[in-house]
Amino acid sequence: MTTLARAPRRLESYVCGSWTAGAKEGQPLLDAATGETVALIDSTGLDFAAALAYGREVVGPKLRALSFHERAGLLKALGTALMERKEEFYAESFHTGATRADGWVDIEGGIGTMLSYASKGRRELPNTRVLIDGPVEPLSRDNSFSAQHILTPLQGVAVHINAFNFPVWGMLEKVAPALLAGVPCVVKPASQTAYLTELVVRRIVETGLLPEGALQLISGSVGDLLDHVTGQDVVTFTGSAGTGRKLKAHPAVVANSVRFTMEADSLNASILGPDAVPGTPEFDLFVKEVVREMTVKAGQKCTAIRRVIAPRAHVQALVEALRGRLDRTAVGLPAEEGIRMGPLASLGQREEVRARIRELQADAEIVAGDPDDVRVASGDAEKGAFLNPVLLYADRPFEAAAVHDVEAFGPVSTVLPYDTLDEAVALARKGKGSLVASVFTDDPAVAEEVAIGTAPFHGRVLIGNRASAKSSTGHGSPLAGLVHGGPGRAGGGEELGGMRGVTHYMQRTAVQGAPRLLSAVTGRWIEGAEVQQGIHPFRKSLAKLKIGDQLVTERRTVTQDDVEHFAHFTGDTFYAHMNEEAAKANPFFDGRVAHGYLIASFAAGLFVDPAPGPVLANYGVDNLRFLTPVYFGDSLQVRLTCKEINPRATAEHGEVRWDCQVTNQNDAVVAQYDVLTMVAKDWPQA
Amino acid sequence: MTTLARAPRRLESYVCGSWTAGAKEGQPLLDAATGETVALIDSTGLDFAAALAYGREVVGPKLRALSFHERAGLLKALGTALMERKEEFYAESFHTGATRADGWVDIEGGIGTMLSYASKGRRELPNTRVLIDGPVEPLSRDNSFSAQHILTPLQGVAVHINAFNFPVWGMLEKVAPALLAGVPCVVKPASQTAYLTELVVRRIVETGLLPEGALQLISGSVGDLLDHVTGQDVVTFTGSAGTGRKLKAHPAVVANSVRFTMEADSLNASILGPDAVPGTPEFDLFVKEVVREMTVKAGQKCTAIRRVIAPRAHVQALVEALRGRLDRTAVGLPAEEGIRMGPLASLGQREEVRARIRELQADAEIVAGDPDDVRVASGDAEKGAFLNPVLLYADRPFEAAAVHDVEAFGPVSTVLPYDTLDEAVALARKGKGSLVASVFTDDPAVAEEVAIGTAPFHGRVLIGNRASAKSSTGHGSPLAGLVHGGPGRAGGGEELGGMRGVTHYMQRTAVQGAPRLLSAVTGRWIEGAEVQQGIHPFRKSLAKLKIGDQLVTERRTVTQDDVEHFAHFTGDTFYAHMNEEAAKANPFFDGRVAHGYLIASFAAGLFVDPAPGPVLANYGVDNLRFLTPVYFGDSLQVRLTCKEINPRATAEHGEVRWDCQVTNQNDAVVAQYDVLTMVAKDWPQA
Repeated sequence: MTTLARAPRRLESYVCGSWTAGAKEGQPLLDAATGETVALIDSTGLDFAAALAYGREVVGPKLRALSFHERAGLLKALGTALMERKEEFYAESFHTGATRADGWVDIEGGIGTMLSYASKGRRELPNTRVLIDGPVEPLSRDNSFSAQHILTPLQGVAVHINAFNFPVWGMLEKVAPALLAGVPCVVKPASQTAYLTELVVRRIVETGLLPEGALQLISGSVGDLLDHVTGQDVVTFTGSAGTGRKLKAHPAVVANSVRFTMEADSLNASILGPDAVPGTPEFDLFVKEVVREMTVKAGQKCTAIRRVIAPRAHVQALVEALRGRLDRTAVGLPAEEGIRMGPLASLGQREEVRARIRELQADAEIVAGDPDDVRVASGDAEKGAFLNPVLLYADRPFEAAAVHDVEAFGPVSTVLPYDTLDEAVALARKGKGSLVASVFTDDPAVAEEVAIGTAPFHGRVLIGNRASAKSSTGHGSPLAGLVHGGPGRAGGGEELGGMRGVTHYMQRTAVQGAPRLLSAVTGRWIEGAEVQQGIHPFRKSLAKLKIGDQLVTERRTVTQDDVEHFAHFTGDTFYAHMNEEAAKANPFFDGRVAHGYLIASFAAGLFVDPAPGPVLANYGVDNLRFLTPVYFGDSLQVRLTCKEINPRATAEHGEVRWDCQVTNQNDAVVAQYDVLTMVAKDWPQA
Repeated sequence: MTTLARAPRRLESYVCGSWTAGAKEGQPLLDAATGETVALIDSTGLDFAAALAYGREVVGPKLRALSFHERAGLLKALGTALMERKEEFYAESFHTGATRADGWVDIEGGIGTMLSYASKGRRELPNTRVLIDGPVEPLSRDNSFSAQHILTPLQGVAVHINAFNFPVWGMLEKVAPALLAGVPCVVKPASQTAYLTELVVRRIVETGLLPEGALQLISGSVGDLLDHVTGQDVVTFTGSAGTGRKLKAHPAVVANSVRFTMEADSLNASILGPDAVPGTPEFDLFVKEVVREMTVKAGQKCTAIRRVIAPRAHVQALVEALRGRLDRTAVGLPAEEGIRMGPLASLGQREEVRARIRELQADAEIVAGDPDDVRVASGDAEKGAFLNPVLLYADRPFEAAAVHDVEAFGPVSTVLPYDTLDEAVALARKGKGSLVASVFTDDPAVAEEVAIGTAPFHGRVLIGNRASAKSSTGHGSPLAGLVHGGPGRAGGGEELGGMRGVTHYMQRTAVQGAPRLLSAVTGRWIEGAEVQQGIHPFRKSLAKLKIGDQLVTERRTVTQDDVEHFAHFTGDTFYAHMNEEAAKANPFFDGRVAHGYLIASFAAGLFVDPAPGPVLANYGVDNLRFLTPVYFGDSLQVRLTCKEINPRATAEHGEVRWDCQVTNQNDAVVAQYDVLTMVAKDWPQA
């Protein structure tokens, strides 16, 4: 236990390019399990306005000069470097009361989220600085005026005010999407566990991987920081509803319409389906999940199950099963092998949870555990903030106001019985908006009723059953690709959700204008914009190719022989191609028509340049629509226009998207689609 | 002028299914041009909590029981019915000070927005009650656990607190997307012009087209209404920043994390490009646009140009051109022919604008017009709230704090000179976030620099030039398909933007689970969900077809002959298909490969059922990706699975989306795509 014996260190803030201690000695932060002082924290004397201005004026331009793929590359390098240092973080994490398993969620979960954003950024975003949002909006019949929504990085700072329970994940899950968007961050961790966040930020700064100042840290109070936020800044808050409301109504936040995302109290529910009777795999999975959610991080998770909603007929069996497992949960020193649950974050937090349990007892009775009788497998039950799991039961759940209103942020849940599935859904909704709900069922009808019924009140709904038992990530785990946040009481925020989380740090703007000028803004060719003809565009490498490079092909007439030949060659003898009478009876055709795949194949025959060249492969087709039937004797012509060029950051080629329009002899568009090709960055004489 | 002579009517509110006058006689609302009393308004004694509860509990379920297409159908019928009554609205609109042209923007613009949502709803949304958001997120390698984001209507009420300047458009542009989402509305128009809104709501209720209560109206103060909002409600506010801030920080709004959208002050800028020198079409267009934005609705538009940013060298020519046109603008009684600009909304509003002009004069001088010397072509300059256009000029624009801070909500703009384009962009941004900026230029580089530079501070950016002169909808016009709103000072809100505006009234939820259960929730087949084989699914009408209906075809071997035959038949003799040595040199291939279009064509040959049946046409293909090269001798098999069924509300057929997966003899996926077909609702024996 040498890690516990060292002298407390004085935490520093990292602002405006240097590490700075507060003017005062600082408030002691205590080890959750032993009560020993781990660190001292203070931010007195920091110039918060300067930190914001530094982020906005010095750092922002540097980040915005990078492309999305370059920023994703930074996140990958940084995540990899942090993962190599994870053991140091685990050692520090024990002070917070986290077991190794708890630390995994925080440390590897946080770094994993950053790595996930790195790989999603490369896969799902183009290698540009501006994002295209949605399709082109044509605003005139003659294509002389159109619009395109774009997303640009906000030119402010992301201020992240985080909770004590996940000092690493809480920082990285917000920093990763902000940096990917191109917005510098100022992180203010909750003091209680700020020593771990500070350690991680030290290691981040030491790597030198991020542009200087992309991440600033405030160890201690934020002082007057919020007085200085502007309409280009974003403030996120995770923590108690009381503090959150104050920040949200802060005059500068309101006056400047600062984007404010809150994640606060959440009385998450889990519902045992009526089919999931004792003896079914779903019943057992439910018991396991409730116990897991009550005990991981000692129940100090925003997503933990607080309300356990079960068929009245099975409540007794359920309570017995839960009580058995909860009573066997070994509580003690988090660093020790065999300990399943560590202490709460602090003695104060324990008193807080005990007070909340007393409030719950107004409407519910304790059926497992005793908040005032702590039993530990190791450690000192008084010096450490230990608390054994407490399960309550409210027999009249619709009258149990406290159960739907009071969040005991610890290993505490309340069982609520229901008589009909409608009632179960109604009970879940009495939480007035939560981060997550779950239902354990193997019945598709139950899954549908609960998921659709609870969805408007939740940011995430998990369905558990035997088929996903092994692969499920569980009720309590936010994932990088899924939105995290909930309406109403849960704070009304939304984070993560893959690239959705990146757009929270960007401004959506509708840009309108003549296509020629609009294309210059978006970097993407649109209908009506300028084109250049001449050399076949397939003969140009990425170094030479420009959007608007266009090929208009010769014409090819489609004959009855062609269609019959294609039908017999491919086996596609659909009646609309083969039988005049039947084709005429079809509401879309006036007679036999050519196959859609024949049109696309002939089109390729018309536009392809056969000799080896910079175009390496046609890897796909998007949004293919057959718009006008092609009859025998119709003559096809293709107009192929370079629409978008996306060089890869780490390969010798890139993606080129071509607008492909096939017209007939009357200039009617018979087919419209995007052809997707891989094109070499360089090619001799191309 | 008979419309002006009638006795003032007592406005009523429409709540909980009936028209109710306030308990008091009411505050008089005056004709803007004559000062005569048009109506009396009061809402004393209304039970606002009951109105919200009625919307939530009685009306919401009725709206949510309809599909998106059914709701779109209601909007279409309602918009059509209102358009037939437009002349009555125009007559009432004159009292507000609006000319016929101003009224067109408000009345036909508003009804047009509703009709636009009706048609977009049918075209862009499925005929369902729940929306799918984004792709399936696979969460396990074995497809036993996946996620899908969905959007469900909020189960609350949309409270729309509107501004006085657009009594019709201001209501309909918010009501249309809310109703399409399935959320009932409570509209509170600004008192000043509420008589027009009340008239339109009367006509709406009389049509009987909407479910009873889908639209409630409060004529007068909202009283304690905001005390009763919940986390499922949405509050939107358009009006002054002062009121907006109060509402946004209202305790119930903050405590319940009520979605709050604000559109407030906005100091919109328009920039004359350095290329747009006097004599160019862009210079003339700019002059016209500035005058139009200053005079339409007497400048009482949130989107009007308040700051006119021009190259210093051309400021004099610009001011002269503007002054000439502004001085010729006929101000007078709005109903009269030849009048270009009516009065402001009220005498009080005129005093307000005069006070703001005095503030602007701290940093700017008046160069056209005189706020204290009203010249009218008709009407009484003292009884009516007339004010001629006022143009100011600030020679030191970076020091002119008031110009970037004070919104004079009338026919008032300030000209600001710039020396470099950087400065022009910086000046636009000094508005601290606006609804819209515009730039007049024919130079793509100028368009790009200004649009990208101003985008983070604006919800919309318009580029004007000669090519779009005739078709441009102009700087000041929000459009149904484009987002409307701006960051920072503009309120931080976002409205409209096509289907984006609908999702503002919906909750996004990530649903996770085993594919079989997830499919039951989303109504869409996903990989890993249950399938049913047997009868060829092309033999089933919409009445019989189920998601998961699947066909697995025979195999077909692709030979060298096939590839060469296809190459010569289509003309696609790309080297990768024809030349072994060149194909091997390609980074993606080990030798000659089959054409992608050949694979798709053979796949169709394998899955198509040729005889006439319920499948009427293949109208397109989505997301086609060629994932593994097909070499000579490879054997292809197709798995075709019914993924999504979307019956049309008004036709005898609907769209069916099929998941099409083509594999080779090693079970590697060589192509993956969605096949889109039209299928009959009914078919004999199908």
